[in-house]
This record gives sequence, structure tokens and C-alpha cells, in this order.
Amino acid sequence: MAVAKSCTCTTSTITTTSTRSLTVAVDVNGADLGPAEVARGAADASGVRVILYGPAAEIGPVPSHVSVVDAPVSIAKEADPVRAVRRTPDASIVQAVAAVSSGEADAVISGGSTGAALAAATFGFKRVRGVHRPALALMIPVPGKPFLLLDAGANVEVRPEMLVQFAHMGAAFMEAVGGVASPRVALLANGTESTKGTEVVVAAHEALAGSAGLNFVGNVEGFAIGTGAADVIVADGFTGNVALKVMEGTSAALLGAVRSAAMSNWRSKLGGMLLRPALRGLRSEIDPEEQGGAVLLGLRHIGVVPHGSFRARGFTRAIEVAARGVREDVAGRTYARLAEAGALRKTASEAVGSLPDQS
Amino acid sequence: MAVAKSCTCTTSTITTTSTRSLTVAVDVNGADLGPAEVARGAADASGVRVILYGPAAEIGPVPSHVSVVDAPVSIAKEADPVRAVRRTPDASIVQAVAAVSSGEADAVISGGSTGAALAAATFGFKRVRGVHRPALALMIPVPGKPFLLLDAGANVEVRPEMLVQFAHMGAAFMEAVGGVASPRVALLANGTESTKGTEVVVAAHEALAGSAGLNFVGNVEGFAIGTGAADVIVADGFTGNVALKVMEGTSAALLGAVRSAAMSNWRSKLGGMLLRPALRGLRSEIDPEEQGGAVLLGLRHIGVVPHGSFRARGFTRAIEVAARGVREDVAGRTYARLAEAGALRKTASEAVGSLPDQS
Repeated sequence: MAVAKSCTCTTSTITTTSTRSLTVAVDVNGADLGPAEVARGAADASGVRVILYGPAAEIGPVPSHVSVVDAPVSIAKEADPVRAVRRTPDASIVQAVAAVSSGEADAVISGGSTGAALAAATFGFKRVRGVHRPALALMIPVPGKPFLLLDAGANVEVRPEMLVQFAHMGAAFMEAVGGVASPRVALLANGTESTKGTEVVVAAHEALAGSAGLNFVGNVEGFAIGTGAADVIVADGFTGNVALKVMEGTSAALLGAVRSAAMSNWRSKLGGMLLRPALRGLRSEIDPEEQGGAVLLGLRHIGVVPHGSFRARGFTRAIEVAARGVREDVAGRTYARLAEAGALRKTASEAVGSLPDQS
Repeated sequence: MAVAKSCTCTTSTITTTSTRSLTVAVDVNGADLGPAEVARGAADASGVRVILYGPAAEIGPVPSHVSVVDAPVSIAKEADPVRAVRRTPDASIVQAVAAVSSGEADAVISGGSTGAALAAATFGFKRVRGVHRPALALMIPVPGKPFLLLDAGANVEVRPEMLVQFAHMGAAFMEAVGGVASPRVALLANGTESTKGTEVVVAAHEALAGSAGLNFVGNVEGFAIGTGAADVIVADGFTGNVALKVMEGTSAALLGAVRSAAMSNWRSKLGGMLLRPALRGLRSEIDPEEQGGAVLLGLRHIGVVPHGSFRARGFTRAIEVAARGVREDVAGRTYARLAEAGALRKTASEAVGSLPDQS
């Protein structure tokens, strides 16, 4: 197992887009468990080539489908990721994104900093033609009723036409990567009636109701978590982010309370012990690592942002999700859907990538 | 047990505000389990007089501290509650609100329709002097770490000064009714930094950071559900409503999955059986009926809106919460807090009650 320790060395091992196999560029900085954990995840990914960007010295030996570009500079902990991306061209995430832009790789994975990954990809990749803004999408592993939530935090303020595009972007991903035919798409609101919600939500509802090629099922309330009412739930990035974290906070509080209850006396302790194997199954079913992390949609290349706390398995899954997104051409399908629905940005020509707060 | 069956009869039994004991007006229409269930809840409330408004024939016998005004007309199921309130002066909720406005009673309880109660009270009660808008507040019974969430749905679009007022209104309630000294107040956002959130949230954060008499602890994320990071969490009514229902949806999904896991095989079934008493304790700890429902704050009189699905116990608690709000003068404390913080509406004179979408 040879470890490529410099850009020169690695570049020489990469063939051109046309002949090389599908390649994923992975930034290993930012992961809570360190670069070696990410590298272990890459080692377990099959059917794909991986280029790791990070401190080569901390990565260790890698199998033949993995190569390493020594990129020790990390901006994963920067408070202002937009500024950090602009000022740090040698940062690992910036180099990983550049590898995709230049055609060396097909998708990018971040080591755990959502802010840095979002800024680098939004800045470095072009948007899908006619897309207003990229969005972060997250598969929510509700037992038996998983759904895709977007935007999970990329766009705090939105316009109705952006929500409409998020709906199509989410549908394209859910179809291509989630394998759901004609996914049911819903708007997150404070009531199921079409008149409920902010002005932006009401306007988006009206536009979505007439949107060609979309299986729009109307508004859903927060209760929809767990009812399987929709395959894709669309929200602005503020509400989506709050909803996502409320889910996580509620789950943690509730599972903690169940655990405490199971420790409250001997009878309960015995019950908890007997129940543990079944609950372990549930825990793995709702394990966010299995989803691979948040997916950046609306750009010409896929980006996947695993959670910083993920173990190797989560990074393996992130690479697999990204590879599937490339193979199934999520970007192309998104464009086709938006075109069919007449939901492309009106002034769209060759929209160059720009940061969310600039366009 | 005499059942007062008409307005005339009931009115004659009510003394004036100055000499009569604390009285709560209760609309019995709209409850899923029917008027008799609400009446049973009223019968169990102690230390307070109760006037029930609803179909006397369906209410049955009541104890001496309860009287009945025959008001069979219900607008609980109307699709447009604002319009229904205006057009239906004899509706039970409108009569209950009028009893408070006229000084016959001190607080109002709705039988289960949030929309009708909100419209009737906002229309019928004056606002606390200097308050922009009333808000719906809800105690979230997280085990060991309860908190007050507002606005839970009354104001879908807000301005920063409204969020600032919600913070003070919530603090006043939490102090007076929740018994928490110097409650920690937080803003719900997509990040803990003061720069995170929509423009409205960022502006509210800045104003709250310098707000006199308020223990403002900054932004919290959705994770804060269950961490006990704040006693009062402030949001606009859209986000607050989504967050509330996401909590409920997540709890239901998770408890359902735990239940399924406990039924998956004999070992688990036995475990579940042994654990059941302890989980029953948890279930009663997180039972929303114990909180009495949502509280309408910012008006000169308290309104409590139990959930339509509540049993008698929930209505008893609603009456008790309303009575405590009156005794502890939540409205007066709210005004005092807002005055101290300089957060009263600038043009405030004698603000008359008006519907949210009109002022």
C-alpha cells in the first residue's frame, strides 16, 4: 500500500475524466475522530476511486483504490468559512473541491465542517443551469418511513421560487439515489391548508400545486415526522435546520428518559436488559451514519457532508452516496425536472457558482 | 346540584368583580370527548368559580362552584375562525370571552379550538398596554427540564420588536405561573452565534442582549429541547409551531418504534412488560394534559387553550393554570417588565384589542 505524499505524486496517478473510473475527492480534516478514521472509511468504499486531501502523515497506509494528497491546512474550525475559503487556496477542502472542478474527481466529501464544505463547493462548483441556490438535503432515518428534508440550513432567507426549486432538487435526488419512483413532495408549514404559512410558503404552495412532473402532496405539519406522509419535505434553511435539530434533541431527550426509566429499579433494569437487543436494532435503523450525511444539491457536482462525529462507516456511506449521485446523474435529472416544470431561473445562461449571500 | 340553563339565571348568580371570588369562563364546545368531559374537568377544579358556556342539555349536573350558561352555538370547527367570531356573537367562545371583558369572569378557557379561541380573545380582550401582539405559549414537559415555548402559532410573520416582547411575556409567565426566578430566556435559531438566523432573529438578538430585567442567554438550536438550556424559548409563530409539532411527531414515532421493538420477540415482550411501570411514569411526566394547554399571553386577561383531545384532567389543569395566572397578575407583570426594558410599543396609548392581521 503506497501512500502518495505530495500533489505531484498523486496527480500523476490520476487519469483523465473520460477514461478514469468514478473518483471521489475526500477532505479528511474536520472529523472528530481524526483523518485516520476518514481514511478507514475510504478504504472500505468499493467500486470507486478515492483521493484523500489532508495531513498525509496522519493518514497511514491506504489500499490501492485510495490515494493521498498531502494537504495539512484545515479551515474546518474557522468561524467565518466563506472568508476562510477565499483566503486559503491550499486548505484541504478547497483543494478537494478544485479537484472536482478540474475534472480530476466527480464528487466531494467534507471531513465534517458543514460551513467550510458549503462555502467551498458553492464557491468552487457551478450551479446546475437555471438553479437559484444550492440546498443541503438530509435523509431522515425514521424507522420504516425515511424522508429527505431540504433545505437543512444553507439558505436562511428564501424566495418562493427557491422553495419550488428545492422541491424539484429533492425529488430528483430521492428518485435517483433513494430509488423512490415519483416521490411525494410536501411543504413544511404550520397547517395543512394551502393558506397556511408565511407569505413565502403560501406563494410556493401555489406554484408547486401547478408544477409539472412533480408529485406535490401539499403542506405537512411537523407531525409528519414519522407518519410517512411525504418522501421529500421542503423548507427554508432556517426552519429546516431548526426542525432537524428539534428532531435530534427530542430523540436524545426521549431515549435518555427511557434509559433512565430502565435504570430506576431492579425490575426495570431486568426489563431493559431483555429489551436491549431489540432496541439496538432500532438504534442502528435510526443511525444517521447509515445515511452518509447531508447532501449538497443544485450544483453541477455532488457534495456530501458527513457529521463531524461520524466513524469510518459514516464516511464509507458518504462516499457511496456521492458515487451513486454521480452514476445516477442527480445534477442532470435536476436540470431536466426544472426545465420540464418551467422552474428554471429566468435569466439563466451559464450561471457561475457564487456564494449564497452574493447572488 | 342545580344546573343553570339560561343566561338570565346564570347572570343573577354572579356577583361583581370586586366582591366575587376568582371566576373562570369555560367554553365547553370543541372538545373531542364532548361538553360533559369538560364539565367533569371543571367540577374537579378547586378554589375557583367556573362558568361553563355550551349546550346545557349535554353538560349534566355540576357542583356548586360551577354554573352553566346555555350557549349551544359552536364555531369550534369553522374553517375561518376570525370571520366566525365576528359573525356569531352567540357562539359559546364569544360569550365566554365577553363574560371576561364585562368583568363577570377573570380568564377564559377554550374547549379545544385554538383558532376560535385565539380570534375571540384577541378580538374581545384589550392588549396589555404597549404590547404589539398576543402570543401563544406552551409549557413543554421535557422530563426534568420543562420549558416554555412561544410563539407556538399565533403570529406567522413577526418583527424583531415582537420577538423582544414575546421574551418578556414568556419571562413574566414563567416567573408568575411556573415559579422560576429570573427565568433564562433564549431565541430559537439555526446556530448559537448572535449572527445566526434570519434578519429578524439577528435584530431581535441584538435588542434582547441589551434588554433590562431580562436573563437573556442568547440563541439556542433545536437541540436545546431536552438539554434544559433555557426556561423560555422564543420564536416566531411559524417556526415555533413547526418546532412544537416536530417534537410531537418525533416523540410519537420514537415511542411507537420502541413499542414495536418491544413486541418483536418473546424476550423483548418480557422486557417490555417489566419496564412498563417505569415507562408509565415517564409517560405521565411528559403528558401534555398536565400543562393544561397553550396560554394566550399579552392580553389583559389570560386565555388557556387545552388540546381538543384532552380528558377531564387536562381541563382541570387548564382552569388551575388560568386561575394562577390571574392571581399572580401575569398581565401586570408583563407590563412592568416591558416598561422597565423600554420595550413597550412606541405609540402605545390605550391599545384596543384588534386581530393579528389588522394591526
